[in-house]
Amino acid sequence: MTGLIGVDWGTTNLRAYRFDGSGAVIERRSSTRGAATLAREDFAKVLVETVGDWSDGATTPIALAGMVGSRNGWREAPYLPCPVDPARLASAGLRVETPIGAAVIVPGVSVTAAGAIPSVMRGEETQLFGAGNRDGLVILPGTHSKWVTMRAGKIVDFATAMTGELYALLRDHSLLGQLADATAAFDEAAFSLGVRRTLTAKSIVPLLFSARADVLLGNLGPQDVASYLSGILIGGEIGALGRGPATLIGAPQLVDLYRAAFAIYGLHDIATVDGDDAVARGLWYIGEHL
Amino acid sequence: MTGLIGVDWGTTNLRAYRFDGSGAVIERRSSTRGAATLAREDFAKVLVETVGDWSDGATTPIALAGMVGSRNGWREAPYLPCPVDPARLASAGLRVETPIGAAVIVPGVSVTAAGAIPSVMRGEETQLFGAGNRDGLVILPGTHSKWVTMRAGKIVDFATAMTGELYALLRDHSLLGQLADATAAFDEAAFSLGVRRTLTAKSIVPLLFSARADVLLGNLGPQDVASYLSGILIGGEIGALGRGPATLIGAPQLVDLYRAAFAIYGLHDIATVDGDDAVARGLWYIGEHL
Repeated sequence: MTGLIGVDWGTTNLRAYRFDGSGAVIERRSSTRGAATLAREDFAKVLVETVGDWSDGATTPIALAGMVGSRNGWREAPYLPCPVDPARLASAGLRVETPIGAAVIVPGVSVTAAGAIPSVMRGEETQLFGAGNRDGLVILPGTHSKWVTMRAGKIVDFATAMTGELYALLRDHSLLGQLADATAAFDEAAFSLGVRRTLTAKSIVPLLFSARADVLLGNLGPQDVASYLSGILIGGEIGALGRGPATLIGAPQLVDLYRAAFAIYGLHDIATVDGDDAVARGLWYIGEHL
Repeated sequence: MTGLIGVDWGTTNLRAYRFDGSGAVIERRSSTRGAATLAREDFAKVLVETVGDWSDGATTPIALAGMVGSRNGWREAPYLPCPVDPARLASAGLRVETPIGAAVIVPGVSVTAAGAIPSVMRGEETQLFGAGNRDGLVILPGTHSKWVTMRAGKIVDFATAMTGELYALLRDHSLLGQLADATAAFDEAAFSLGVRRTLTAKSIVPLLFSARADVLLGNLGPQDVASYLSGILIGGEIGALGRGPATLIGAPQLVDLYRAAFAIYGLHDIATVDGDDAVARGLWYIGEHL
């Protein structure tokens, strides 16, 4: 194989990787031209502008993962129901013609089993396969955190917690946020208090409002609200979905927050994988199956 | 006693009641001049404009409940920690001078016990005492639903679920809301599905995102999203806080939704009290103790 051009094309950003024939990343680029910022007809142009000089003229394969394949992206690559492995993902890839050769859009993955809570992912499947976990629980924290069960190298089931989005909604638009100091730095004590309370409360439902009550009662200051809320939401996510050893994939700062919350839950057997490395390896791994 | 003027002065509305000497409501008025719409110096003027003609000139007692007593209201009436009964509430009332005589602002109530989740209420305490439940669980659903334990006529403990506020945040500001038809009518099947799923999922955490996934997967239509979300949130509230027989206080439409969700949880022993009647009786009851 003559190398690969891989792009993790998310909602707000894109990250591009140039691979040599051995799968080593020899160059990286990123931009803010995410899928949500582009009209359908702009994707080809942006691809050429971003990585056109990496192409040897139509023979270097191109793999695109993430929201580029959503309904509002370049073209919709329908979700594949679990269980899914990289070969199946690659063979279901959607071929699009571009000025620098054919590209394949990696499909998302869905949970559609009877009785399960329906869910979808798009982009995370590529990170997951790049992280290389063949069995066990893998967590991708973020706007919509994914808790994924892997078995024999397949994604067999997953759940989604809207932790990052709820945090932003509550901080920016709620009555809790009105009492928060928006410029405050992270406060570890407030974060830990939030996590600890999810241990005893068992649910975030009666806890969220305490981010307001504690300020009105003088127990927390405005500078504590955001960190306390973060602790409630991450602790509540672990309380609802956690069950023993796991691997965290993500940016180091976010992964560290989750590790701190897991430790309060008495779970110390948590491995970590850098999210950026995982997505690059995943693009290569799927590219090999093209 | 020469009658009473009672005002439930909330964030966005005020409701005023004129009582005769026997406690019967002989006139009602309401307006949108809620506490959040007024500067501190406007409250006296609005009181006179709204109910000035009901006063006999400084001898008719006036009781004010709700956000009028908050930090951003007319004057702050600090929260009384549980346990609280009407006599204690009345004796801790904050006296303010008005052009139509002295008025008393009813304090809010707080949960501050060690180990409890801190919470506050302001206005609901008046509805509660008006509903007349001396023992058991009383629920006031709404923006910030209150689940209150009464014992021997006292409020002894309560929890708050941000159900109404979360619903509005998710519908109006989230990625879930982007897929919703904002003009859709209530859909009972979608609401029931949401409630039923909280029964098996045990937590709203992995459920909320299904309001997006189910639309992307074609299981729900845009017209179902808001009702489905409402079912998840009300079901999740009952799942986290419900425990046997209860009394619901509120507007008939909202109370009916909760009764439907309780029925799915197998709880049919749910009494109801009209919220407007309860607040009027509560103002009279506290007024008697002034």
